[in-house]
Amino acid sequence: MPDAIRLAEKLKLFSDLWSPKIVAAFNGHDVMVVKVKGEFVWHSHPDTDDFFLVLKGSLLIQMRDGEVTLGAGDLYVVPKGVEHRPVAVEETHLLLIEPAGTPNTGDAATAAVKKAI
Amino acid sequence: MPDAIRLAEKLKLFSDLWSPKIVAAFNGHDVMVVKVKGEFVWHSHPDTDDFFLVLKGSLLIQMRDGEVTLGAGDLYVVPKGVEHRPVAVEETHLLLIEPAGTPNTGDAATAAVKKAI
Repeated sequence: MPDAIRLAEKLKLFSDLWSPKIVAAFNGHDVMVVKVKGEFVWHSHPDTDDFFLVLKGSLLIQMRDGEVTLGAGDLYVVPKGVEHRPVAVEETHLLLIEPAGTPNTGDAATAAVKKAI
Repeated sequence: MPDAIRLAEKLKLFSDLWSPKIVAAFNGHDVMVVKVKGEFVWHSHPDTDDFFLVLKGSLLIQMRDGEVTLGAGDLYVVPKGVEHRPVAVEETHLLLIEPAGTPNTGDAATAAVKKAI
């Protein structure tokens, strides 16, 4: 039987940015933690919504028709097909959920390789 | 464009126990917050994994072959078909994700009605 997944402990295991680490599987989705800082690329996912929950820090999600700012304990779902760019002024820790195999940039050629931890 | 979803604010809007409130939609799933205290019923979901993230408090998830204890910031996915019973000694706040329409007891006849807040 798997043990409880302690997100804070998982986040101590790595330091690279914009590189999601898989911590659990859920209904064909990868549940991931990631550390981010700076500006990501503008991108969209044609086939999946994009789930963000801020665990620590603050995340700005820019979209073409507006933006939202998330603090710790705030979540947002970017609907599929909606162009967005995550931006974090300081190092920020997120919980992400995406269908297994989804490229984080929306493009397999530029996506980070997601590894389980 | 929807606003950010501030889970702590959502949790201030209700006080009933074991009654999940929908805060967002994600890939055909309901994202919900719930307050729990005491023992829930033993149940399973034949068609879906069951996602638990503890936001505040502590949750024991009993299964037939063992149990896990989650504190704030810990998550667990009970695989589909696995019988389980959530137990919380003190009031505990959870983030849950389930396919839209999933009965929280595993049985539509006894399930809570899930409303959006």
